[in-house]
Amino acid sequence: MSRSLYSDHASGDTAAAGHLSDRAFLDAVLEFERALADAAEDTGHISPAAAAAAREAIDGYTYDVADIAAASAAGANPAIPLAAALKQRATDTSGIHTGATSQDAIDTALALCARRAVGEIDRVLSEVEKLLEQLARTHRDTPVMGRTLGQQALPTSFGLITAGWFEGVRSSAARLRETAAALPVQYAGATGNLVATHPDGIAVHDRLAQLLGLADRPLVWHTNRQPFVDVGLAAAVVAGAVRKIAGDIIAYSATEIAEVAEGSPGGSSSMPHKANPAAAVACDGYARRTPGLAATLLDTLDCRWQRGTGSWHAEWQTLRDLLAATASAVSRIHTSLDGLQIRTDTMGERVAHDNLGHAPEITDIILEGDRS
Amino acid sequence: MSRSLYSDHASGDTAAAGHLSDRAFLDAVLEFERALADAAEDTGHISPAAAAAAREAIDGYTYDVADIAAASAAGANPAIPLAAALKQRATDTSGIHTGATSQDAIDTALALCARRAVGEIDRVLSEVEKLLEQLARTHRDTPVMGRTLGQQALPTSFGLITAGWFEGVRSSAARLRETAAALPVQYAGATGNLVATHPDGIAVHDRLAQLLGLADRPLVWHTNRQPFVDVGLAAAVVAGAVRKIAGDIIAYSATEIAEVAEGSPGGSSSMPHKANPAAAVACDGYARRTPGLAATLLDTLDCRWQRGTGSWHAEWQTLRDLLAATASAVSRIHTSLDGLQIRTDTMGERVAHDNLGHAPEITDIILEGDRS
Amino acid sequence: MSRSLYSDHASGDTAAAGHLSDRAFLDAVLEFERALADAAEDTGHISPAAAAAAREAIDGYTYDVADIAAASAAGANPAIPLAAALKQRATDTSGIHTGATSQDAIDTALALCARRAVGEIDRVLSEVEKLLEQLARTHRDTPVMGRTLGQQALPTSFGLITAGWFEGVRSSAARLRETAAALPVQYAGATGNLVATHPDGIAVHDRLAQLLGLADRPLVWHTNRQPFVDVGLAAAVVAGAVRKIAGDIIAYSATEIAEVAEGSPGGSSSMPHKANPAAAVACDGYARRTPGLAATLLDTLDCRWQRGTGSWHAEWQTLRDLLAATASAVSRIHTSLDGLQIRTDTMGERVAHDNLGHAPEITDIILEGDRS
Amino acid sequence: MSRSLYSDHASGDTAAAGHLSDRAFLDAVLEFERALADAAEDTGHISPAAAAAAREAIDGYTYDVADIAAASAAGANPAIPLAAALKQRATDTSGIHTGATSQDAIDTALALCARRAVGEIDRVLSEVEKLLEQLARTHRDTPVMGRTLGQQALPTSFGLITAGWFEGVRSSAARLRETAAALPVQYAGATGNLVATHPDGIAVHDRLAQLLGLADRPLVWHTNRQPFVDVGLAAAVVAGAVRKIAGDIIAYSATEIAEVAEGSPGGSSSMPHKANPAAAVACDGYARRTPGLAATLLDTLDCRWQRGTGSWHAEWQTLRDLLAATASAVSRIHTSLDGLQIRTDTMGERVAHDNLGHAPEITDIILEGDRS
Repeated sequence: MSRSLYSDHASGDTAAAGHLSDRAFLDAVLEFERALADAAEDTGHISPAAAAAAREAIDGYTYDVADIAAASAAGANPAIPLAAALKQRATDTSGIHTGATSQDAIDTALALCARRAVGEIDRVLSEVEKLLEQLARTHRDTPVMGRTLGQQALPTSFGLITAGWFEGVRSSAARLRETAAALPVQYAGATGNLVATHPDGIAVHDRLAQLLGLADRPLVWHTNRQPFVDVGLAAAVVAGAVRKIAGDIIAYSATEIAEVAEGSPGGSSSMPHKANPAAAVACDGYARRTPGLAATLLDTLDCRWQRGTGSWHAEWQTLRDLLAATASAVSRIHTSLDGLQIRTDTMGERVAHDNLGHAPEITDIILEGDRS
Repeated sequence: MSRSLYSDHASGDTAAAGHLSDRAFLDAVLEFERALADAAEDTGHISPAAAAAAREAIDGYTYDVADIAAASAAGANPAIPLAAALKQRATDTSGIHTGATSQDAIDTALALCARRAVGEIDRVLSEVEKLLEQLARTHRDTPVMGRTLGQQALPTSFGLITAGWFEGVRSSAARLRETAAALPVQYAGATGNLVATHPDGIAVHDRLAQLLGLADRPLVWHTNRQPFVDVGLAAAVVAGAVRKIAGDIIAYSATEIAEVAEGSPGGSSSMPHKANPAAAVACDGYARRTPGLAATLLDTLDCRWQRGTGSWHAEWQTLRDLLAATASAVSRIHTSLDGLQIRTDTMGERVAHDNLGHAPEITDIILEGDRS
Repeated sequence: MSRSLYSDHASGDTAAAGHLSDRAFLDAVLEFERALADAAEDTGHISPAAAAAAREAIDGYTYDVADIAAASAAGANPAIPLAAALKQRATDTSGIHTGATSQDAIDTALALCARRAVGEIDRVLSEVEKLLEQLARTHRDTPVMGRTLGQQALPTSFGLITAGWFEGVRSSAARLRETAAALPVQYAGATGNLVATHPDGIAVHDRLAQLLGLADRPLVWHTNRQPFVDVGLAAAVVAGAVRKIAGDIIAYSATEIAEVAEGSPGGSSSMPHKANPAAAVACDGYARRTPGLAATLLDTLDCRWQRGTGSWHAEWQTLRDLLAATASAVSRIHTSLDGLQIRTDTMGERVAHDNLGHAPEITDIILEGDRS
Repeated sequence: MSRSLYSDHASGDTAAAGHLSDRAFLDAVLEFERALADAAEDTGHISPAAAAAAREAIDGYTYDVADIAAASAAGANPAIPLAAALKQRATDTSGIHTGATSQDAIDTALALCARRAVGEIDRVLSEVEKLLEQLARTHRDTPVMGRTLGQQALPTSFGLITAGWFEGVRSSAARLRETAAALPVQYAGATGNLVATHPDGIAVHDRLAQLLGLADRPLVWHTNRQPFVDVGLAAAVVAGAVRKIAGDIIAYSATEIAEVAEGSPGGSSSMPHKANPAAAVACDGYARRTPGLAATLLDTLDCRWQRGTGSWHAEWQTLRDLLAATASAVSRIHTSLDGLQIRTDTMGERVAHDNLGHAPEITDIILEGDRS
């Protein structure tokens, strides 16, 4: 079922989008609740029977996304109706949502969704890095006209240019992985002090982190939204890195320049003769949505007292949109680069001499991984 | 079918969202194509038989959103596969997509979607205005402590405060209506000069505008994106106007202040005693997503030559997200205001004197509609 | 004294910037205070002697910007130390800052600065419109290759293209004028009800508006920030309209395309042979700062109770930066267009036929002013 | 000399601003040129005599900022007139701007300014961290009502709340330091391959980095703007972290809540009885300007070919504004926290019981530095 032609959340266009749909989000809330029952049992906070009752209620539970959406309006979050439904189903409610507040369930769920989406983005980024590395190696000594402010300037190598593309992707991808790996579990209770599960609260928290494979620090981040902001900003930088490549491909593909061409260019509904760099154009279209979304995310750092009054609620869609747009931008640049035709003859015709300076050497340094 | 818990595009949570879904968007592309066949026939550019063949192909056509989404990737827009499918179905293709380029179909479709969504938003805004006007009239002489920088300052009237809310909504709603009414048809052909339907092009354009109820100027706006930017910015101002109200309601609802309370406050998954201003909080959550989206939309003014290379593509999701978020913010402030309890006793206790200055008089001037 | 190489506030690079400097801002605060003394006298609220004492104190007052900046920190706004200094100087303080709150002085001052800056921007925009109109008339029938998604598409006329540039500027300039003309005086007292000058408050307000040439409605807008937001957003749209032109000029100037060239292109510190479209590049550099500033301005609509707690304070720099960046972008596009060389031979060589469709006709419709 | 009341670039309000003024920026360009002469001599690329001539020309050079601003317009950057002036003064020009392009000088200069500004910001952040740590230790066991969605929820400790403030500052400050330490020198020549100093180019580059104390990787980043984006985004997160504290202080200072009060609250021009949390309000005012500026910075990742056409030029003001706003926000939160009065009696009256759950324990874990 397609959620959107353009944001790709659940369209299957990107694997990442599959982890960012409403259903994936709500499923992750249930995943939190189930792991909480396990963690509470493992730490002796609830009895094995209570945990079993909780698991039974959760495992057999099915829901309709639209119903949950409608029921969410009353309390302004979907964890309330989900927890209520589980409690209604359980023979013993002591193992359901134990010591948790809605924000615990939702933050953890969003962290799970984000981490998985980043995993899928990173997988494609690895492919993109390989394609770029191959371009840089192949064209290490290929002369091309360097252009500044739109004007022909002095020759350089196409290998150095693509090595620059590579470096932008590699460094931003590394930061994205780092921020995703740092995504923490949230389990802190109503006002952040785990009072309802005291004195077992911190043990339950740490076990829960372990079970879900999330970081266990910061211990409470109800109003310290940096973990989500960090991953969102890192995604926006990745989007910017691939947008740079897309913009260059579009520019190089101009009819009068024609130094590169997409392998499977796009057509036109009115001009059959055209060969548009459609994948690069789409990449740019997705990527340029990310700076505005990043600004919204930065604004969510402003949250009041022990729970954001709107700032928190604005995160859920914004972070998912940001990751989905990034995933689509990355997917499209992969398509654009895969089979990209490099017209070395055309490049060469514009270069009067082939003094490439340090270009090949710098290319090697970049590809070596910058071990300094 | 729920598209998102939080952006409400197709969730039914707002009527506006129904006009902003992927299906509504693609349906509007088909609506453009059908009206184009009619307009081309009406102006004598194509034969009645060609028009009839086009209508038959269009009317009987059904599509799967996911299929179109997948097919859109090749050319980076969904009008290409839709027009191709229609041409394949038609016995005479001369009446299909006549003289049009993809951007004509998509811009017009988005204009139709936006105009309809704004119509729905405006309907709710009218209700909001009525509730605010009623509050201002009722509390024309109700003393309340004025507060600046978070501190008690000097008394004023609650009527003047709510008249201020009213004025912010009224003026921004008027601008939103104005920008939506100005949304134009797009029909200009591949490079904007209607060459393919020359010398009938302008007549077809004007007739098409008439049939679809859209403005007929600017005549070509492929790269002058101000019509969409204007409506998007106007929506963001509406969102800001209701966010101001939501923020005040949240602040007035604080336990220690308690001068207003939502009629149906939200609960908590962990604290049954709480009465959260959940609708106002949700309103803020939606509204604070709009400044970032507005920035993205402003950025789309930068489009190259005769068709944006990514800037155009970024509009489709951004404008719809912006309108959907605004619609949800407006819907939630309506819920918050509908039945809002005003605790005049509590307000009165904090006011040592009831010298309200010009407050009642200014309230009257605002409600009279500012006839200056 | 240059404030900034790049934001041009006080550098003299643009006349608008002269109205946006810190000194111009503080001078406008004093202008408010002086007009307030006049208005209070004219309406009989204070005696002629009190007004004379106020005028004497204000007229002879000189200040150091850095001193006021330092003194502003205590109360978080510069009107407090200015009003205090004036009161200290006056033999009769009843005519100083009468019935006003800091926000009255600052909002009015910023409105004055903004209106004047827009006046200067508009003067240059008129020159830009003339240059564009001339280009469109001259090249009404000049064939040029139309380009979409970076690719040659079908021929059109250069007149139609420049008429499109013209239309974008004309419509956005009109809106900017409209929003600037609507900028209101602010005079509402501590909590917006003019209690301190009751029952003369509204008369003083209206007379003050008259004296300063500002609109008299909305009567109080301490927390309804739409007047500033409207003018800021309109400026950002102007910036976007000229950025579109700049981007096209940069693209047309590319060595391989060479269909236009700036009359006085820029040089390079390392490549004397280059002829960069430096003015267009600088225009883009200024203009692309405006969407982010516009987002910040939209965010200021969220202000609490009777005075923004930070949202208000964020406006002062943001609105001035936004107008200054717009002024610089407009100034630079004027330089770029003034003397722009149009290489019709090069354009013509790329066009196999000269069927321009409706291009000349649409150009005429646009230039006629769209009287529909 | 005051540059701005509110952006504080050169007002002396913050030490950081002193490193971000136009003069500091141009001075840093000259610092680059001087270090380049040294590096070229040290690596044997130019003769000691040429280096001496260069140093003599640079050391004796004085300039007027306004003159350079005016001369910058022609080539759209200030390095061109500066390099030209130096060459004119030098008896031997071979040691002036050797092998460099304008972007080398400007990027390096901005990196120097940014690194120094961050150093000053970080110094104040350390003081802020100390104040917060002290608050958290002092109030480790102080009961306070926890509040969610504006409502009283369940008790917690004020130590845990301030430990949360501390953690937000500590983690964002660490990232800011990390990004500033990674700021690289730029020295790559016209099209990034150091052709003009080949085969000594890389040696000169590395020596230059060493002399200026900047990182030597990435080796060329003319169109990979991540180093500046990273430091700008990190600053915006710092601004968000202190804005959270400011917002809480404003909320806690509300007359009806009155649990904290600034030590030196601000006054009012019309209400002498008021005690406004002026420093916190100003902090919020500066900080909320940063998300929009961060969005602009993210947008600069999109630069074309071997030199950004506008995207590069937009960085110079944006990065400086972003750092200056962050510096001011940090300075103001320091003022707000320094001497902040904590009304533990008022806090205590609202708490029916003193079961603080894990609050003290979590506070300890946070203050210990999260060694997990």
